[in-house]
Amino acid sequence: MNYPNGKRAIKHSLAPKGKTKTDFSNRGMSLEEDINVTNEHYLASQTAVVHKKPTPVQIVNVDYPKRSAAVIKEAYFKQASTTDFNGVYRGKYIDFEAKETKNKTSFPLSNVHQHQIDHMKAVQLHGGISFLIVKFTPLDEVYLLPAQDLFVYWDEQWQGGRKSIPYSYIKQKGSLIPFRYQARVDYASVLDKLYF
Amino acid sequence: MNYPNGKRAIKHSLAPKGKTKTDFSNRGMSLEEDINVTNEHYLASQTAVVHKKPTPVQIVNVDYPKRSAAVIKEAYFKQASTTDFNGVYRGKYIDFEAKETKNKTSFPLSNVHQHQIDHMKAVQLHGGISFLIVKFTPLDEVYLLPAQDLFVYWDEQWQGGRKSIPYSYIKQKGSLIPFRYQARVDYASVLDKLYF
Repeated sequence: MNYPNGKRAIKHSLAPKGKTKTDFSNRGMSLEEDINVTNEHYLASQTAVVHKKPTPVQIVNVDYPKRSAAVIKEAYFKQASTTDFNGVYRGKYIDFEAKETKNKTSFPLSNVHQHQIDHMKAVQLHGGISFLIVKFTPLDEVYLLPAQDLFVYWDEQWQGGRKSIPYSYIKQKGSLIPFRYQARVDYASVLDKLYF
Repeated sequence: MNYPNGKRAIKHSLAPKGKTKTDFSNRGMSLEEDINVTNEHYLASQTAVVHKKPTPVQIVNVDYPKRSAAVIKEAYFKQASTTDFNGVYRGKYIDFEAKETKNKTSFPLSNVHQHQIDHMKAVQLHGGISFLIVKFTPLDEVYLLPAQDLFVYWDEQWQGGRKSIPYSYIKQKGSLIPFRYQARVDYASVLDKLYF
């Protein structure tokens, strides 16, 4: 076979036939999908019970055709009042939001909403563990930032502070989450070090 | 004023003007609504952080009209893979399902699904507190039944056991949940006695 494009030939040699489905590298999968895969693995391996909450939808009109499933004909996306993920790990309540950014140097606070911060503060108040998982997509780096370190920048933005968290701060205060074959965003290993 | 209908006059005298909106009796509200009101009160009074999970919906078709919100045009209800409610109370992860029955003498197990039982077992395994809230609507009685006492009947039904839990068992193993003005299903007071 002829590959006029050298790059393509190289790519092909690195990814042999049948590799596509078993290729567990981060490419092509969103952070959310990676966390879902991780949570499935955690559940199956009896590590933790964590689920993503369904997208909240305001249902307006439902059709009930005879002998078949109800069809939602009109509905609208609602803003979530909490974070996306919660569950139990080693007896503790854990609760987190996951966000990816195309930025390399900072995480824009506009990715997070006030009601999510309020929720995370309430969780911490009641003894739960709350944190943010941030992926810097161009760097392929995923960090766990404890909620209290997020609050510092969140609260300061209203007193003239900056509207984003510098990458350097997240690197310093947060923890790099390792990528593993099945636990693609292995946040539990980071929680082990931080909270147990 | 003349009330040709005696009943209406009596009703009126029992429900003075403006009472409608502040009438917090159980009548007319579903168990789920009562629990949502309770959870709002728990959140506001810094008692607990517990939310109902959104109904899971499989979205098939979304319309994005210009200058207005996206409209979901076709979607289907999905079966939930977990229980309906979870959150954190006094540092512990809590997780429960709420069901009402029109029966007076037993709770039919068909109200619960295998995947919910699996989820509750996983929660207990990881040190969370899991339970069922059952309302016997004709009796206006609401019980908290710890998950392990539900499992007994659930598992036995596959070995020729009965397909429902007798009211007497729930009364004995469970705890009657008190009704309070704001905490309409005050399950936290029951958890205090059982787990703390």
